[in-house]
Amino acid sequence: MFPNFEATPPKPGTFRSIFKWGKPDQFKHPSQGFFSVIKDTLELPDHHFTKKTATGDQPVTDNIPFNLTPQDLTALTQIVGPDNIDQSTYARLFHATGKSMEDILRLRHNVIEHLPDIVLHPRNKSDIQQIVTHCNLNSIPVHIYGGGSSVTQGLECRNGGVTLVMGTHMNKILEFNETNQTITVQPGMMGPDYEAALNNAPKRFKAAHAYTGGHFPQSFEHSSVGGWIVTLGAGQASSYYGDAYDLVISQEYVTPTGSFTTREFPGTATGPKINDIMKGSEGCFGVLVSVTFKIFRHFPKNTQTFGFIFPTWEAAVTASREICQGEFGMPSVLRISDPEETDVAMKMYGIHNSLLDRFMQFKSFKPNQRCLLMGQADGNHRFTATVKANIKKVCKQNKGMYITGYPMKKWSHGRFSDPYMRDALNDFDVLIDTLECSVTWENLHSLHTAVRKHIKQNPRTICMTHASHFYAQGTNLYFIFITRNKDLKEFRQFQKGIIEQINANKGSLSHHHGVGRLMAPFMENHLGKEQMAVLKALKRHFDPNAIMNPGGTLGLD
Amino acid sequence: MFPNFEATPPKPGTFRSIFKWGKPDQFKHPSQGFFSVIKDTLELPDHHFTKKTATGDQPVTDNIPFNLTPQDLTALTQIVGPDNIDQSTYARLFHATGKSMEDILRLRHNVIEHLPDIVLHPRNKSDIQQIVTHCNLNSIPVHIYGGGSSVTQGLECRNGGVTLVMGTHMNKILEFNETNQTITVQPGMMGPDYEAALNNAPKRFKAAHAYTGGHFPQSFEHSSVGGWIVTLGAGQASSYYGDAYDLVISQEYVTPTGSFTTREFPGTATGPKINDIMKGSEGCFGVLVSVTFKIFRHFPKNTQTFGFIFPTWEAAVTASREICQGEFGMPSVLRISDPEETDVAMKMYGIHNSLLDRFMQFKSFKPNQRCLLMGQADGNHRFTATVKANIKKVCKQNKGMYITGYPMKKWSHGRFSDPYMRDALNDFDVLIDTLECSVTWENLHSLHTAVRKHIKQNPRTICMTHASHFYAQGTNLYFIFITRNKDLKEFRQFQKGIIEQINANKGSLSHHHGVGRLMAPFMENHLGKEQMAVLKALKRHFDPNAIMNPGGTLGLD
Repeated sequence: MFPNFEATPPKPGTFRSIFKWGKPDQFKHPSQGFFSVIKDTLELPDHHFTKKTATGDQPVTDNIPFNLTPQDLTALTQIVGPDNIDQSTYARLFHATGKSMEDILRLRHNVIEHLPDIVLHPRNKSDIQQIVTHCNLNSIPVHIYGGGSSVTQGLECRNGGVTLVMGTHMNKILEFNETNQTITVQPGMMGPDYEAALNNAPKRFKAAHAYTGGHFPQSFEHSSVGGWIVTLGAGQASSYYGDAYDLVISQEYVTPTGSFTTREFPGTATGPKINDIMKGSEGCFGVLVSVTFKIFRHFPKNTQTFGFIFPTWEAAVTASREICQGEFGMPSVLRISDPEETDVAMKMYGIHNSLLDRFMQFKSFKPNQRCLLMGQADGNHRFTATVKANIKKVCKQNKGMYITGYPMKKWSHGRFSDPYMRDALNDFDVLIDTLECSVTWENLHSLHTAVRKHIKQNPRTICMTHASHFYAQGTNLYFIFITRNKDLKEFRQFQKGIIEQINANKGSLSHHHGVGRLMAPFMENHLGKEQMAVLKALKRHFDPNAIMNPGGTLGLD
Repeated sequence: MFPNFEATPPKPGTFRSIFKWGKPDQFKHPSQGFFSVIKDTLELPDHHFTKKTATGDQPVTDNIPFNLTPQDLTALTQIVGPDNIDQSTYARLFHATGKSMEDILRLRHNVIEHLPDIVLHPRNKSDIQQIVTHCNLNSIPVHIYGGGSSVTQGLECRNGGVTLVMGTHMNKILEFNETNQTITVQPGMMGPDYEAALNNAPKRFKAAHAYTGGHFPQSFEHSSVGGWIVTLGAGQASSYYGDAYDLVISQEYVTPTGSFTTREFPGTATGPKINDIMKGSEGCFGVLVSVTFKIFRHFPKNTQTFGFIFPTWEAAVTASREICQGEFGMPSVLRISDPEETDVAMKMYGIHNSLLDRFMQFKSFKPNQRCLLMGQADGNHRFTATVKANIKKVCKQNKGMYITGYPMKKWSHGRFSDPYMRDALNDFDVLIDTLECSVTWENLHSLHTAVRKHIKQNPRTICMTHASHFYAQGTNLYFIFITRNKDLKEFRQFQKGIIEQINANKGSLSHHHGVGRLMAPFMENHLGKEQMAVLKALKRHFDPNAIMNPGGTLGLD
């Protein structure tokens, strides 16, 4: 059997129209292979998939009280103009909602919480300066909405206040500088617009060459460039291009204490770098109003892809480590999947039971043991050939067998659309969620083992793990777990248990999702009191009245 | 004629024994070619070079009063033990002296200023914690001495207090981790010890491979690993390995507010990075007590060197920019010299008037116009071949002619010993000093032109410029100027004028020398009030009683 997965756009004005991933009319359903794995592992009978529950198809009623004074409303309206202010419950709920399982579970059960009092669409830096000044004087909380893809409850407004929507007006390119290979943009620009402008630089800016931003998070289509920076995102090609942290040359901020632009030097020795201090501040210090990014020459014709199968997870990990430590240039994309994820991938990519599968098994690459490594190299054509040749050598030395770029091609196809599957599964009471961390090579295996053991306490749970952002010193581990749905309280317990396992086993609380309000309670234990005190000192400096994204973000209040 | 440059080690206990560069018995004198350029440009007659002046051969008298209370002395002695405390004027002067022209001019004229009251040699972190606690309670300034190579007056003790000498005891390797490719060391370890340990890792740590730290500042032999970090140094191979900022995975600090160790993740998304906030703090926030560095596989056999001559500075700059923007991997060393430096280099390297020189001139690479580009690539053998092949291609496209790795070989030979020439020249009233900055590609030419014009107001001045630390977005400019000696007041005016030119023409105050007390007065203008306020807020947090390296460092007080 195969369920009747949802394929109708949600009705406008409904809860579902808020939490549904991506475009209203776009869907992706689990393949038959993937669905079978879920059904079998979770031990779900056929009849489980006959009825959808908690679909969130109810309309959002416009009845949540509004707590700003008439004076505040007048003042804010005067700043942004009447067209750029929205008091409706729907707009307030929409802009207080991210894409965490917690957000989704709430909306599926029509729970409305943590709304701003009003939604503002600032037109420019001056609007933002005036808003921040007014809110600072009147102790009104200020929140910032970029692309809305936060999975850390980063958009909740626990004390009301205003939410600034950056994507409406502040989504423009301010300067393209081919000599410096930089671009200056407003933070509300979305990933695809940003990348398209760079790819089309010859036409768009009369540039000599085409460029890429090199930043492709899974949320690429639904995240803003500002969000990438303030949450310390990392794209799927970060192993070569760097994390968002690395990509930022300078930034302009409006804070309650004042506005400033950091200087545009690629390297400088003038004391602790304010440009870096602001990265990862998640709206707690001020509002990012423009950013200058590094950009890179775009050579799509030179891209080399590769895929290998390894007999064990240990061999795949060692190979990936040796790739990162080989001093021959890094691939842009590099991914290794543990045995459980590899088996699912084989089914998703149609390799399971194929001729290739039989050949692999004949060569002793066994299901439940074998692991996939795949990726691609970008850049100059001689460089990508060098990277690929060296990767082949390293993989061979570690008993990897080359299986062409086919898995990479399949992965590339779904790289931004896989999140659509969550809504389809959630409808049938199947929970799919992720947690991720960074880890040094030394601690990778113990962390992986401990977290899997914890999750697998309930055997009717899928736990797939991959590493996808690589450094010579370590990588990230990304855990995807699929289990029976839980109510919000149960889910929070389940999630907390995994986070505690990660923290206890020397993983960071996040490699690229950020802290938000989800990880905030764990921050002091993770960083220690002394380091949390540094963040709090910065908070006091920038935001003495604690109006910027208050209510727990980063563990600051 | 050729002067009788000094070749006798300074007498122990003299001023000269303090300011002389490097090892007491090591010397390097200008070559005949270099000397002739100086003599001719500065229009110095033969008799100018018959008598040395202000040689600093006088002994340092032990007569500077000591301002600590007997109680403080007892307490500090109890902490470090009587063998690790030194009240002598000589020790106090030695450890308050760096290698700036200002330091040297003072000591040549027997001026004793800005001493600590006492010099301490802490044995471990616990000693430092106790010292900082005692000094914080009793408002005693604390300064830190690493290798003593500061050229920014970073070691002056303007309000007395204590100086901690890190190199005596705190110079050990704490952990070598081959899996993570990291090493944890104490901050007082000197460059050559650090690099030798890594190169000899198979013997020293039973490692599978040899490693390199990748950090080779010109002060390599006389600077400490801790100094590299807190002043944001950059090595001559930084274009591939990164600046000191990039090399640091985690750090441990003792501050008046508390002690902490940052977590050892190569990438993490848990808010603003405390590890990065501490870099460049120049002793103003606390004492660095251990550091974990990235290390790199060491493949000396794979090194490829290259050298090119370009018809113009513009062509050399464009070629170097295209190299950095080519996405084919970066060379470790890359250097371009402007026409004046190129001409001097030709003379220093014995190329001037050689067959090669005549061939170059035949090919229309003219003196006073032609520019040298040279460097080397390190890493995997296929990688270095790729880098070199691409560099050749870029250089050829920009009218560069390949002139082999010969200039690079000559440069490598003198890369750490050139600073010895300063003492030899200073003896004959010839001033040689440097200033450096970072700059974006866009502003490089205007900055270079403006600074040269300013310096050349006095035509009897040599001004050589090179760029030696490269990024896709820009580089550094390093100005070496040689002129008649000046008294301290004149020198300060001269230096200030150049710094103002750099700042006004969009250079940073420093690419890799740091701020110290030299650049401090310019910081607020350079960064702006709002960003200086951030540094001051951090200062207040870590060091509320302002005991850490007070007296102007970073412009904080």
